[in-house]
Amino acid sequence: MASSTVADSTTALPFKVADLSLAEAGRHQIRLAENEMPGLMALREEFGASKPLAGARIAGSLHMTVQTAVLIETLVALGAHVRWASCNIFSTQDEAAAAIAVGPDGSVEHPAGVPVFAWKGETLEEYWWCTQQIFDWTSEAEAAGADWIGPNLILDDGGDATLLVHRGREFELAGAVPDDAPGDSHEYRVILAALRASLAASRDRWTRTAAEIVGVTEETTTGVHRLYELARDGQLLFPAINVNDSVTKSKFDNKYGIRHSLPDGLNRATDVLIGGKVVFVAGYGDVGKGAAEALRGQGARVIVSEVDPINALQAAMDGFQVSRIESVVGEVDIFVTGTGNLNVITVDHILAMKHLAIVSNVGHFDNEIDMAGLETLDGAEKIEIKPQVHEWRLPNGRSVLVLSEGRLMNLGNATGHPSFVMSNSFTNQVLAQLELFVSPENYPVGVYVLPKHLDEKVARLHLDALGVELTTLTPEQASYIGVPVDGPYKVDHYRY
Amino acid sequence: MASSTVADSTTALPFKVADLSLAEAGRHQIRLAENEMPGLMALREEFGASKPLAGARIAGSLHMTVQTAVLIETLVALGAHVRWASCNIFSTQDEAAAAIAVGPDGSVEHPAGVPVFAWKGETLEEYWWCTQQIFDWTSEAEAAGADWIGPNLILDDGGDATLLVHRGREFELAGAVPDDAPGDSHEYRVILAALRASLAASRDRWTRTAAEIVGVTEETTTGVHRLYELARDGQLLFPAINVNDSVTKSKFDNKYGIRHSLPDGLNRATDVLIGGKVVFVAGYGDVGKGAAEALRGQGARVIVSEVDPINALQAAMDGFQVSRIESVVGEVDIFVTGTGNLNVITVDHILAMKHLAIVSNVGHFDNEIDMAGLETLDGAEKIEIKPQVHEWRLPNGRSVLVLSEGRLMNLGNATGHPSFVMSNSFTNQVLAQLELFVSPENYPVGVYVLPKHLDEKVARLHLDALGVELTTLTPEQASYIGVPVDGPYKVDHYRY
Amino acid sequence: MASSTVADSTTALPFKVADLSLAEAGRHQIRLAENEMPGLMALREEFGASKPLAGARIAGSLHMTVQTAVLIETLVALGAHVRWASCNIFSTQDEAAAAIAVGPDGSVEHPAGVPVFAWKGETLEEYWWCTQQIFDWTSEAEAAGADWIGPNLILDDGGDATLLVHRGREFELAGAVPDDAPGDSHEYRVILAALRASLAASRDRWTRTAAEIVGVTEETTTGVHRLYELARDGQLLFPAINVNDSVTKSKFDNKYGIRHSLPDGLNRATDVLIGGKVVFVAGYGDVGKGAAEALRGQGARVIVSEVDPINALQAAMDGFQVSRIESVVGEVDIFVTGTGNLNVITVDHILAMKHLAIVSNVGHFDNEIDMAGLETLDGAEKIEIKPQVHEWRLPNGRSVLVLSEGRLMNLGNATGHPSFVMSNSFTNQVLAQLELFVSPENYPVGVYVLPKHLDEKVARLHLDALGVELTTLTPEQASYIGVPVDGPYKVDHYRY
Amino acid sequence: MASSTVADSTTALPFKVADLSLAEAGRHQIRLAENEMPGLMALREEFGASKPLAGARIAGSLHMTVQTAVLIETLVALGAHVRWASCNIFSTQDEAAAAIAVGPDGSVEHPAGVPVFAWKGETLEEYWWCTQQIFDWTSEAEAAGADWIGPNLILDDGGDATLLVHRGREFELAGAVPDDAPGDSHEYRVILAALRASLAASRDRWTRTAAEIVGVTEETTTGVHRLYELARDGQLLFPAINVNDSVTKSKFDNKYGIRHSLPDGLNRATDVLIGGKVVFVAGYGDVGKGAAEALRGQGARVIVSEVDPINALQAAMDGFQVSRIESVVGEVDIFVTGTGNLNVITVDHILAMKHLAIVSNVGHFDNEIDMAGLETLDGAEKIEIKPQVHEWRLPNGRSVLVLSEGRLMNLGNATGHPSFVMSNSFTNQVLAQLELFVSPENYPVGVYVLPKHLDEKVARLHLDALGVELTTLTPEQASYIGVPVDGPYKVDHYRY
Repeated sequence: MASSTVADSTTALPFKVADLSLAEAGRHQIRLAENEMPGLMALREEFGASKPLAGARIAGSLHMTVQTAVLIETLVALGAHVRWASCNIFSTQDEAAAAIAVGPDGSVEHPAGVPVFAWKGETLEEYWWCTQQIFDWTSEAEAAGADWIGPNLILDDGGDATLLVHRGREFELAGAVPDDAPGDSHEYRVILAALRASLAASRDRWTRTAAEIVGVTEETTTGVHRLYELARDGQLLFPAINVNDSVTKSKFDNKYGIRHSLPDGLNRATDVLIGGKVVFVAGYGDVGKGAAEALRGQGARVIVSEVDPINALQAAMDGFQVSRIESVVGEVDIFVTGTGNLNVITVDHILAMKHLAIVSNVGHFDNEIDMAGLETLDGAEKIEIKPQVHEWRLPNGRSVLVLSEGRLMNLGNATGHPSFVMSNSFTNQVLAQLELFVSPENYPVGVYVLPKHLDEKVARLHLDALGVELTTLTPEQASYIGVPVDGPYKVDHYRY
Repeated sequence: MASSTVADSTTALPFKVADLSLAEAGRHQIRLAENEMPGLMALREEFGASKPLAGARIAGSLHMTVQTAVLIETLVALGAHVRWASCNIFSTQDEAAAAIAVGPDGSVEHPAGVPVFAWKGETLEEYWWCTQQIFDWTSEAEAAGADWIGPNLILDDGGDATLLVHRGREFELAGAVPDDAPGDSHEYRVILAALRASLAASRDRWTRTAAEIVGVTEETTTGVHRLYELARDGQLLFPAINVNDSVTKSKFDNKYGIRHSLPDGLNRATDVLIGGKVVFVAGYGDVGKGAAEALRGQGARVIVSEVDPINALQAAMDGFQVSRIESVVGEVDIFVTGTGNLNVITVDHILAMKHLAIVSNVGHFDNEIDMAGLETLDGAEKIEIKPQVHEWRLPNGRSVLVLSEGRLMNLGNATGHPSFVMSNSFTNQVLAQLELFVSPENYPVGVYVLPKHLDEKVARLHLDALGVELTTLTPEQASYIGVPVDGPYKVDHYRY
Repeated sequence: MASSTVADSTTALPFKVADLSLAEAGRHQIRLAENEMPGLMALREEFGASKPLAGARIAGSLHMTVQTAVLIETLVALGAHVRWASCNIFSTQDEAAAAIAVGPDGSVEHPAGVPVFAWKGETLEEYWWCTQQIFDWTSEAEAAGADWIGPNLILDDGGDATLLVHRGREFELAGAVPDDAPGDSHEYRVILAALRASLAASRDRWTRTAAEIVGVTEETTTGVHRLYELARDGQLLFPAINVNDSVTKSKFDNKYGIRHSLPDGLNRATDVLIGGKVVFVAGYGDVGKGAAEALRGQGARVIVSEVDPINALQAAMDGFQVSRIESVVGEVDIFVTGTGNLNVITVDHILAMKHLAIVSNVGHFDNEIDMAGLETLDGAEKIEIKPQVHEWRLPNGRSVLVLSEGRLMNLGNATGHPSFVMSNSFTNQVLAQLELFVSPENYPVGVYVLPKHLDEKVARLHLDALGVELTTLTPEQASYIGVPVDGPYKVDHYRY
Repeated sequence: MASSTVADSTTALPFKVADLSLAEAGRHQIRLAENEMPGLMALREEFGASKPLAGARIAGSLHMTVQTAVLIETLVALGAHVRWASCNIFSTQDEAAAAIAVGPDGSVEHPAGVPVFAWKGETLEEYWWCTQQIFDWTSEAEAAGADWIGPNLILDDGGDATLLVHRGREFELAGAVPDDAPGDSHEYRVILAALRASLAASRDRWTRTAAEIVGVTEETTTGVHRLYELARDGQLLFPAINVNDSVTKSKFDNKYGIRHSLPDGLNRATDVLIGGKVVFVAGYGDVGKGAAEALRGQGARVIVSEVDPINALQAAMDGFQVSRIESVVGEVDIFVTGTGNLNVITVDHILAMKHLAIVSNVGHFDNEIDMAGLETLDGAEKIEIKPQVHEWRLPNGRSVLVLSEGRLMNLGNATGHPSFVMSNSFTNQVLAQLELFVSPENYPVGVYVLPKHLDEKVARLHLDALGVELTTLTPEQASYIGVPVDGPYKVDHYRY
């Protein structure tokens, strides 16, 4: 499996498997992270012997961090073969990628690692090249003596891998990739170019790939949104499990993860005291709730904006000022967007900000802040303070600090959600992969959430590590409220 | 409408309409409460002229407080006729009942008020007598020259009014009320006795009543639970709207209401410093979340218990110790139950408590604490410190303080949820009554939640009062996330 | 000691010793409060046998609450004779006064209680009459067969008792009481009238009284401020211990007491939801810190005002908006003053407030709010909603709600600081009385704070009740930081 | 001034002035930090023209961070000459040192910077070599044509520079440096060796230096403690200003600084989720208060230990469990010491910890944790995870993670207190240097705190940046409370 290393994948990669010190550093971190990921470790214990994922070939597209390394090694421990790319150009931790590429035994001579295609700071062209590699199982086919093998599962974050398969097949069926249109983003042009090259090389690569896939498990709000649209429009090609809306994902990753990683990113990027500052948090969904709580916990005065009157009322009841950005833009020190929408902060807003106001985003895409507008603003100048931290000198004589070029700053400026949070999310991912692979008959094409008893199982696997003592219902109590003693305990519409 | 006064209803009632000073005090409080109930006042403005509830006859069973008075007068302003009882023996505020009985013009000569049957401190016999009165529209029938008139809507809290109709009809169909069974609670025996008397007086009173009813709107978790069971078992007689599960009800009333009224009840009952104390909160649903937040906000150290691993994990992630009651019972100063389950605190637990530990319940029924067991405990003695505050001297030489005899202490020891919270809940109630009465064709027999746009409307009506500025989506933004500019904004399974 | 009862003191008093149910209710509350006042109970245990206060005659002027009852009975247990008045016209809890007047044995035939002169809702004339009674030890003199006896200790709160002695003696030396001057407040005129009558009856009553007094222990910031002024001006007649500035008083009573009793008072007065409201807290000293924390803990958005830049910076660093009242007056729902200064809220401010804004004070005097100005405002009308809650209808058509007529609302609308907090303050009081009475040689005329080891002792006596485990220094550790193993642990200027 | 560069100082230094990119990166950070240090920038504006520090020669020993760079350049802007070392072997930010060494004009040819002797990761031998260099003003003497020049001011943090002068002079007077004694720490042996070499080279170097010094301003609790001991024992050689006990230092740096930098250090070191974890904070002084607030704000459950009953009671009243370490050691995930004492965490405690518990210190010295004991523990093995993060494998089969080898982790694992906090501390430092240099007549040998009006000035200079509106007293109000309109506002013993 000599091809299963980063070094072999392309000579353009910025690190080599031979850089064993990087892999070794990653291995240390993976070992420590395992201690913080009790859900995944419990699944290894429960399923490590029976290997229910034997025969699974997983194409993974998810931030290539230390935590993802523990996820990958859990999938492998359950019997799967895996190829991996990151789902964000800045989010890879190179030491984690190196450790996964080398494998746990650490030998560069006989690497037993996982083929991984990810490094911190990819160009968009490199990013989509990487994403294509997780669908290219040529070396596995050679090893198996087969003509062709494709993945049979996708593990996706944001939906780029799923998008590639859907668009690839669509253009193959059409026999052509459309020309670039005037309004197309740079990224979309890169995708079209990649698919044009693909179509030139093979007329049915994505069609075959799509046919092979048993299903996809999707990590984020954004990717889930795309899936529901595909399903609504009758274009979804295979079943999808919406991992994002497991309670132990959306209410944990989004809220508690951001609570942790937002101040972490601000600190690493700027070292600015958060206490006493005026902070503007756009959006009071789970991400915004976590952000607002974290910043208040550091002594900031938080102002929230919302479009949904229910969330707005929640913010007010939690003691936050709720204002439109236009009303307060000039008194804010730190801006944080987490809405999932676009142009939440416009160039006009930026021009009205205080000198050296900090502008950052923890929503999935970088268009929450109008970076495109800023980049074309006459007289604006961009100065790199350090990687992922840029001072934009504005024509009005003031500057703002933009973190991670408007992309997810908690990944770009820090290390993303911490292991314990990701253990919840990823335990959902593994259970979802198991559901699709082991019980495909339960999942006709459509979008599903995991059944509540699995959601509760994910939580249950994380209690001991925190010293939580769970109370057990007596049979009389269970009967009184009409639930089994072992759960599930709540109606489906319960909101937690 | 001579019967429309408390004084006329029965000579046993503890206050007279002639006690105008009580009514006047209530009227002042109603006027102040109106300032805190912008949702209801907005509905009066929107629908006061068109009177869409003209022809509605509402049997209301809900804590007869000042806030409920504003609800009642809103229903009347929309055209409804109303009869009212409380849904808890301790929860009536007598001045509110008096003011409603007298009516806004305050004249004892020509009372224009609403027939109300409620006073603070009813016996169970009185309570069920009162509940029956809201179904007895004899005087309205007389006034209309009709043989018989029944209500066509129920507005319920906890389901007692709905229970009475269902059981009454069931026994009428059976031709007999069952004998008391050995395990029957005292309260159930009172109900059976009332229905026996009813059956003796009329063979079809409840059958006719049930036939007339267009639907019920139900306020609480407990009542909703009963409704879903009736529906599941095919026994539900008319459509029901689950008001409890509107976001602006369950996530506001349960959480923010308890946050307010729990410490209020503790303070009025005991004047004990909450700061520095160890408090045990059973249950980390919305009620428990509000309780824990309030007590931490007062400087208590809060220990939570949970049976659901997801809620337990939430409690831990919010920084609370999560323990079984047995592990900590001897170090706790204040116990609060809010689970909706029974025997959460047993007599054995009580015997293990510190001297003068405070035992209180904010769940719907008094059986969260095993009061029946305490009352039959050999050697236990009950001393009234003041109304709704009792010292129980235990055979082990220690005492505990029990609030409101184990019933809802935030109502028994304080004045319940404050007006602003109830404005959210009650605006949902009015909208739900409107839905059932105006558009019955949309509601075949079954249990429904309000559509999301009405939930958002409730929130929207409460923003101005708090100075909240709502952000408006641009058409481009609305299109980007695939929602109308004016909402609704979220998928149904969104958890807030 | 037949005269030692409220009933005997004056026929005008609103309750009778014969009203044993009132006394009995008070006795229950005193018994419960003892459980919350471990410091005082520990002093009874330590000094109950040796009776170091035998021979002490204490004139007490301090809110006559249940907690003060435990203080009084502790002083008596240590051997003192005591006469008591309240230091605020609204702050007496009548059941506590009754219980103290009757004494622990509860017998109306042979009352063994303490002479107490206090009831809820005194007029100013009654108030100063009561204050004079604590200096009139005629019945004690008769019992002792002496011509005249005066008190030898004052226990003061706010300095009114001390003021009476100083002014009384001053006018006796001058031979006349000055005439009322145009700018004199109503209260000062009442004092002058009282002293005129006193001078008419005796030319040296206060001079003799002052000579007898060993010292005063003063409870509050305001009273201490007066004492330091007297000392600075060379007019102080006897030594004073500044109890207020014990850490276990000022940082506990002021901060944690207000944190508890401010929301309690707001709730009992208005039942208005605090969550989501905009609250203005004037002053960010210990009182303001406790107020702001409590209100944020209930979900309010708190705006603070300050004149001291250090305290202002603290407020900002704690996450609060810091603004001048003029900048925000129109958006505030609830105003709370706690500055110790006058005219913090003026009539102009009141006229700029929202309809039904709540105006309240937790500073010592009622002039933080310009009540005098409001009372003389043309076109303003005062409507009593309930005792201590008044709607002021303003000439601009709006109303505001004023609590406790601008006086201490946490006492007037609630029951003041809770027992546990007062146990800290009052343990300091007893230790201070002991210092002055047992070791007068250590206290030449001047103002003192208690030595740090006694401050630490007060804290130590309250730890067990809260389950606090204190860590003990090893001798090596104590030596390393240069303190005794048993304390005191900090330099005098340490700020906690 | 060719010697004024790092590169010239010693060939052993890890970075060169020629590494201009490092200096440039530091210069960017200094520019950003200036925006966060309004107090220092205001002093440059106030005193930049008059240059009151002209003639001052300052030997500075304080963490060589970006913030200290702004301090240094402020001192230079006020006219001082400065030489600088760090006061901790790990705390230097190399880019800040490089930028200061190069100076603002950035030219390597003619560096105009400040002689700085500091780099991240010094050995103890290097550390004390650096500390000596700030007293060696040979090049300044040469430039001035003088035989010898010494510094006339010390700016100290922790007291090492002051210690060196006092011990150096003591041994010179004795004519010999004592031999190493068996119990001497490694660090003390390094100091003795350095002074032996010094004595061999010069018999009166430190005696002359001490004579020249006008005074020292000291930054920390620890250093201040040493100064009070020297003063008490009559050994203090020159006046000292205790900057630590300015309110705007101790209550800001210690509390708000740690609140910021503790979670920052934990995150950068371990990326472990703080939410849900059990954290043990030793000490509830200002440092512990900031630590506990920060960790609770991240959702941790915090357990506090204390030896002082007053602080212990404060912790309980703030809602924290207060326990001895022995009672809870096995359930804690993260340990933080901030007591200023030694052996707070012993090897026995470490052996009782959970696997991979995190052990960290934010107190001044590394002996809060018994690192010496751990280093000599049989069977313990130290593995570097990354710089300043070590896994210690214990003989019991478990591991713990030790941060910064037990030294200040907020400096070693993060970047120390943020600029805004340090602006408060350093504005005090500059004002203190000014006091000693400009008005030496006011400061006979002894230890002083800054007068309150200067403390208030420091606060005042930081309000605008946070958008704080300060309220101004009316003359009537100022007179009523007996203070000047412009302050100072509080009595000296006021605790804030």
